Amino acid sequence: MFIYDKKLQYPVKIEHPNPKLASIIISQYGGPDGELGASMRYLSQRYSMPFDELKGVLTDVGVEELGHLEMVGALVHQLTRNLKDSQIEGTNFAPYFVDHTAGVYPTAASGFPWSASSMQVKGDPIADLTEDLAAEQKARVTYDNILRLSDDPDVNNVIKFLREREIVHFQRFGEAMQLLREKLNQKNVYYMTPAIDI
Amino acid sequence: MFIYDKKLQYPVKIEHPNPKLASIIISQYGGPDGELGASMRYLSQRYSMPFDELKGVLTDVGVEELGHLEMVGALVHQLTRNLKDSQIEGTNFAPYFVDHTAGVYPTAASGFPWSASSMQVKGDPIADLTEDLAAEQKARVTYDNILRLSDDPDVNNVIKFLREREIVHFQRFGEAMQLLREKLNQKNVYYMTPAIDI
Amino acid sequence: MFIYDKKLQYPVKIEHPNPKLASIIISQYGGPDGELGASMRYLSQRYSMPFDELKGVLTDVGVEELGHLEMVGALVHQLTRNLKDSQIEGTNFAPYFVDHTAGVYPTAASGFPWSASSMQVKGDPIADLTEDLAAEQKARVTYDNILRLSDDPDVNNVIKFLREREIVHFQRFGEAMQLLREKLNQKNVYYMTPAIDI
Amino acid sequence: MFIYDKKLQYPVKIEHPNPKLASIIISQYGGPDGELGASMRYLSQRYSMPFDELKGVLTDVGVEELGHLEMVGALVHQLTRNLKDSQIEGTNFAPYFVDHTAGVYPTAASGFPWSASSMQVKGDPIADLTEDLAAEQKARVTYDNILRLSDDPDVNNVIKFLREREIVHFQRFGEAMQLLREKLNQKNVYYMTPAIDI
Amino acid sequence: MFIYDKKLQYPVKIEHPNPKLASIIISQYGGPDGELGASMRYLSQRYSMPFDELKGVLTDVGVEELGHLEMVGALVHQLTRNLKDSQIEGTNFAPYFVDHTAGVYPTAASGFPWSASSMQVKGDPIADLTEDLAAEQKARVTYDNILRLSDDPDVNNVIKFLREREIVHFQRFGEAMQLLREKLNQKNVYYMTPAIDI
Amino acid sequence: MFIYDKKLQYPVKIEHPNPKLASIIISQYGGPDGELGASMRYLSQRYSMPFDELKGVLTDVGVEELGHLEMVGALVHQLTRNLKDSQIEGTNFAPYFVDHTAGVYPTAASGFPWSASSMQVKGDPIADLTEDLAAEQKARVTYDNILRLSDDPDVNNVIKFLREREIVHFQRFGEAMQLLREKLNQKNVYYMTPAIDI
Repeated sequence: MFIYDKKLQYPVKIEHPNPKLASIIISQYGGPDGELGASMRYLSQRYSMPFDELKGVLTDVGVEELGHLEMVGALVHQLTRNLKDSQIEGTNFAPYFVDHTAGVYPTAASGFPWSASSMQVKGDPIADLTEDLAAEQKARVTYDNILRLSDDPDVNNVIKFLREREIVHFQRFGEAMQLLREKLNQKNVYYMTPAIDI
Repeated sequence: MFIYDKKLQYPVKIEHPNPKLASIIISQYGGPDGELGASMRYLSQRYSMPFDELKGVLTDVGVEELGHLEMVGALVHQLTRNLKDSQIEGTNFAPYFVDHTAGVYPTAASGFPWSASSMQVKGDPIADLTEDLAAEQKARVTYDNILRLSDDPDVNNVIKFLREREIVHFQRFGEAMQLLREKLNQKNVYYMTPAIDI
Repeated sequence: MFIYDKKLQYPVKIEHPNPKLASIIISQYGGPDGELGASMRYLSQRYSMPFDELKGVLTDVGVEELGHLEMVGALVHQLTRNLKDSQIEGTNFAPYFVDHTAGVYPTAASGFPWSASSMQVKGDPIADLTEDLAAEQKARVTYDNILRLSDDPDVNNVIKFLREREIVHFQRFGEAMQLLREKLNQKNVYYMTPAIDI
Repeated sequence: MFIYDKKLQYPVKIEHPNPKLASIIISQYGGPDGELGASMRYLSQRYSMPFDELKGVLTDVGVEELGHLEMVGALVHQLTRNLKDSQIEGTNFAPYFVDHTAGVYPTAASGFPWSASSMQVKGDPIADLTEDLAAEQKARVTYDNILRLSDDPDVNNVIKFLREREIVHFQRFGEAMQLLREKLNQKNVYYMTPAIDI
Repeated sequence: MFIYDKKLQYPVKIEHPNPKLASIIISQYGGPDGELGASMRYLSQRYSMPFDELKGVLTDVGVEELGHLEMVGALVHQLTRNLKDSQIEGTNFAPYFVDHTAGVYPTAASGFPWSASSMQVKGDPIADLTEDLAAEQKARVTYDNILRLSDDPDVNNVIKFLREREIVHFQRFGEAMQLLREKLNQKNVYYMTPAIDI
Repeated sequence: MFIYDKKLQYPVKIEHPNPKLASIIISQYGGPDGELGASMRYLSQRYSMPFDELKGVLTDVGVEELGHLEMVGALVHQLTRNLKDSQIEGTNFAPYFVDHTAGVYPTAASGFPWSASSMQVKGDPIADLTEDLAAEQKARVTYDNILRLSDDPDVNNVIKFLREREIVHFQRFGEAMQLLREKLNQKNVYYMTPAIDI
């Protein structure tokens, strides 16, 4: 079970509203490579992952990603607080506003709701860990792209922290893969034995 | 941020594998009225909800639903452990198996991946709380239906616990709505003032 | 069966084309809380709803929502008639135009086609009526948001009429819920008896 | 606007419950080639269709399809009334039941909710009418396939009526296309002039 | 099987980057009426199509559409090469950029990923060929609309070539339909015999 | 552009119809980890991939996957030829049959149409190649699972060939990643430099 600690993993304090920027950052909330997908992917893959160390990695990272989801939500919320109508009308934020006012909804920047189609739980430890390595790289690129489009230091500060964590997770999943290979028997050295037989 | 406590909110101990039953129960993991949707709905609605008491209700219930998601995942996992091929072939579980082996993936019983289309964050406290009341009723009905199709006491025990909690949440959201009405000014008594002006 | 009466429930006469505004209003045609969803939700829920009075409410409101769908379609159509290319190029309407020219297609403002994922028919009268209360509130908020982004009186006039009707429907569903509670036996006072047993 | 006439276009009276058959027939309610899509396609295409005769055909057929949607809903409802648990458990109907009890929900037989992705409004009369011809053929095939899988005369009677109507609609759209060609100027004889210029 | 010939069917040489235009043209890559859908529709329909001549038409056109997909991809790629951040920020291209940088991803202009919901394989030759006629008309309209929004001769040159090919395909499918009618027996003259019996 | 060679990469000759097995194998046609996704992923990622050798790998593998898609389609087709109604009714194949007769449609075994949501083109070479490694592992597991559920040697023969090719592709993408790392400058050794700057 989960316990809530009433603080963010890293503080989010945005001074200047910027709905256009919010409508880009939302992709790390509910986009295909965002934090909702990350947390649900890892927390779901735990059940069929063999070996306690590997289950532990998925749990640790999954729980941390829930905290990142919360941070991204805080970013979007603070960038869209106390808006005047003139800050909404005719901007890229208007279509979002009409459906969600200034609520935080899990959608991609391009406008479609998050779907579990963008993640997989394959029930095979090598396939699942390789998917996780890919997920971390894709999240890292999204943060790269946000940094290119934002010049607000309050925002970039947070995005850089989150980007850094994706790289750390990528390394943890790399180590997990290494551990898995060692644990698997020799026939699996070329990734050929079905996981269901482990 | 979130902290993981390495135990389930309520114990799950399934003796007899039953993939057919698992392929029904998965709907409370990733179906339209399931626990993934519940947790993401409440945790997302927090940001735009006015008044600390109401934010608190959404956080409390959202965090508890994450724990229910974990319990439903444990049910599905334990019902599909150590299966023989003959327990899969030709059953309703076979289509799931081909794509996810015995992994736990957020899908509806009828087979489509969870999508945020089935939830809303409207950025308006009355609309959001009414959606929450509806969500709890719909989850309650899904548990009713599972109880009709299952005669495994190990499973039903857990489902009854989860069903009970939905009713408690329904009541908490009812009280939250009451509190909201009291806090809103008189013009809102017929739900007519846009929330963005509160 | 349905009979068509060749007039709108409330007249729509738009003088000034405004594709940007049309690309927002389309959300009440095919968005998650729009009129297509409303009519299909109520007309579908009728079959499993007990008691003739309640079936009647769902039919009445469902049929009226079909007429609202038609009015929203007329709004979008009249706002996008006789456009010059320069009124399309580079605006928020351009992506819509490339796929639908000036046709009226059921899509959300943010760009994804309407999906029945955004509605539910739970086959349980309490769950279904609570969903309907939520749907009316969400539609009301969408109209609030359109009013914030539009200053065309020809449009706002129509939107205010539609918004008003959602509030009336909300009240009718509230009364329907009250009636249902009276009809259900005492055991159901806490919403605990499965509807399938009624 | 629409007026409801409290009778079906053609009577539906099913004696024997058959949830397995219902779980196939539902595809004509909410499947990709079903009646929900048909009615929404034609009623949406009206706005941009030139010439009153053609608008009239789309309205007529669209309104009739709403009545067919109602008939298919009645079929599904009557095939799933008063079920015992043993008639649900382990059948193809079980996944549907867990999410919708015995309610009528717009889904394909294969289990995914109806989506407007399966229809188009192209805002071009030739493209739209050709899509309509295709839609009628596809609906006709679905009814062919249901007839192959059902041996209940109460059901087949209704399905044959609906199938017959699709063929009539196909012919009406064929005549509409003929009329359109005559009305369009010579440059359009090879379908080459953009409709927006008509 | 397929063999790759390292040249485009028609040359694509774009001098001036134009991400806004790219974000419209992408709809012919991954939009509902685009080339991905076209190629997959025809190549999938082949299997159940009777008569070698008709299978041949579907294969020929399907393979050519793969080549058109490649050309549209080249257009999008060349229009988004070597962009400066200032050419992205605040434009319609920004939401796409955050998720795909300058990669070519199969999405509609309005922002949702390509889905096979927008195509059908009905396993019936008349239904499938009528769908193909509709598909070619819809693709033709999309190219019409792009031509209205673009004034870059490098682009329009290519779009005109692709548009021309859709008209040729429309005629080929028309001839295929004619051939099919001749081959089918008299009972089918009104499209009434199920294809599965041919 | 693409040229069609009228033979399969590996022969498919199925003696015994088996629609139940077909309804599982279809997942490698249009499921989330199937061949449609594989070919479209690699052929789309080519445009933004730096270095001719890497573009070449993506093209080679993408074109081969198109041929695998064709082989899987042939499997499904041959397993569903000349069926009697009694081989369809009440089986897992019935829902598919009602919508597609015996046509080959890109859907997952669990019943939802293929969607590009299950693939990504991130426009970053490391992210894209890691995604490709994951894709090959996931496809490999699907083939493992089909082999568990099939005892038809005509089928298994083909599935084993396809499974083997996924492992070869995994190795090719591994070598491509190695080559990429060598080509990238030292700052990228920890995957930290945005690809757009290469």
